[in-house]
Parts: sequence; structure tokens; C-alpha cells
Amino acid sequence: MQGLDSVKDLVFETEYWQVMLFPSDQTYLGRSVIVLKRPCPDMPSMTDEEVIDFKNNVAKKLERAIRAVFGAELFNWSCLMNHSFRRSPPNPQVHWHLRPRYREVVNFAGETFTDPNFGYHYLPYPEPERKVNDEVRDNIIKAIKDQLGQA
Amino acid sequence: MQGLDSVKDLVFETEYWQVMLFPSDQTYLGRSVIVLKRPCPDMPSMTDEEVIDFKNNVAKKLERAIRAVFGAELFNWSCLMNHSFRRSPPNPQVHWHLRPRYREVVNFAGETFTDPNFGYHYLPYPEPERKVNDEVRDNIIKAIKDQLGQA
Repeated sequence: MQGLDSVKDLVFETEYWQVMLFPSDQTYLGRSVIVLKRPCPDMPSMTDEEVIDFKNNVAKKLERAIRAVFGAELFNWSCLMNHSFRRSPPNPQVHWHLRPRYREVVNFAGETFTDPNFGYHYLPYPEPERKVNDEVRDNIIKAIKDQLGQA
Repeated sequence: MQGLDSVKDLVFETEYWQVMLFPSDQTYLGRSVIVLKRPCPDMPSMTDEEVIDFKNNVAKKLERAIRAVFGAELFNWSCLMNHSFRRSPPNPQVHWHLRPRYREVVNFAGETFTDPNFGYHYLPYPEPERKVNDEVRDNIIKAIKDQLGQA
């Protein structure tokens, strides 16, 4: 996916999916992008096995881990693919956005994360974006991975 | 779901899901809400059967029908549940939002529908909302249902 590093940003992967943190915007702490490993243009074209793996081995585990380590209370999921349609011809690839939502302020890795609008639709384009540096990114990923290891 | 009429707004239903048009905002023509029939608080709590039914019998068929009748080119899916978390305690119920996206202007039922920002994230709160009256709502639903009947 554009702007993501499948090595440095990788949180974990399953048989069909790759989970990456989205370090260029952590307005919603733990914001991640989940990409199907094979080429697939849209959500209904996923196989039954892929959608079950997504629900059980990505969404369930990732929600549980982020809830445990950061205290997220709600999780916003979306499958959009708008960016790809700015080009002609479009070349969409199925991916999901996860934005954890927080009622309370979170202090983590020396930084403070505040959900700017809990209870309302996430800001599609936060201004400014909440970029995190490599060290903070690595700490966020490690915290989630450690929790997943305990699950 | 709040603000929806499960009789007047109903497009179709499957074993597990109810598909309703969202007549209070048709900025993205065909915007719909898909609600799980049984109580279920979050996406990972769906059963395998429910998520497969959603993909195969809701998403695939609804996308195909709306593409055929209105010319939608892309479909934005989201599962958010923010509104429920404004209350305490929250009482979320799994539902999906579908916003079809259009490169071209669509003329239908004597009305003109223009996607204001194709290629970009949908407007979460369009101002003003594009309400449609009962007659236009019924025509939109009928067009989708007729197309589903032919599929």
C-alpha cells in the first residue's frame, strides 16, 4: 500500500492478510491498514476463507490487543478504495482501515494521544496529521505484538 | 436503526441481514444501511455464516444492482457504530453503511445526483443533507429491487 513499509510497519500477518500500522497518522492511536496478500479489486470478490480469516484472525485479535494495551473502546472499520479511482484506469486492491476510538486520553511512549471526536465519525483527513517517529512507531507495534503473544 | 423505517425503507433482506435505503441522505445515490437481524455489538462477534451471507448475498448483489441501475463505479463500506457511544452505557448494534460512488452525474426519477468528491473519502456529514421525498425513495428502491429480480 502507498506510503506503507511492509517490513517496518508490519504488526502481524495471517494466511491471507497483512496488518500494518499507519505511522503517518496516529490521530486514532493504533490506526492500521490491513491488506489482502493476493490481488483482489473489491470486497465482494474476497473468498469465504479470506473473509472468515479477516474476522477471526485479524479483526477479533487486533481489537482485543488494542483494547488491552491502549484502552480503545470502539473500533471503526472501513473498506473504501477511493484513492485508486483518482487514476485511470483504476487499480484497486482490497484493504481495510482500522481506527480505534478512545473516550479517554492515552499516554504512551512519552506521547499523549487524544481522540478529537469520540462518538462521532472519524476525521477522514485530520489536520495536521499525527505523524509518529520511528521509535514511537516501533513501540506501538511492539506493545500490540506483545499483547497478541499473550492472547 | 435510528431514523430508518424497516418497512418503508426496506430494499431486501437475507437470512441474517436487512438492507434499508437511507432516504435522509442520498448525496451518494443508493446510500444504504445494512443491519444484522439479531442483537450483536461488534463486527468480530458476527458468526462465520453471517459474514459469508453479508459478502455473498448482500454486498455482491447490492453492488451489482446499483452499478447496473445507476452506474456506480465504486462502493465505500464502513462499520463504525460511533453514534451509540454518545450514550452511556453504549448499546451498539452491528450495521454497515454503503455509499456508492459516482464519476458521472446521474439523472434519475426527475432528480440529479452528483457525487461531490469522487476519488476522495465520502463526506461524513454532507451539508446540506440530500433528503429525498417518499416518491423518489420508492423509485430508488423499486429500481434496485427490479434489478435484483433480474440477476
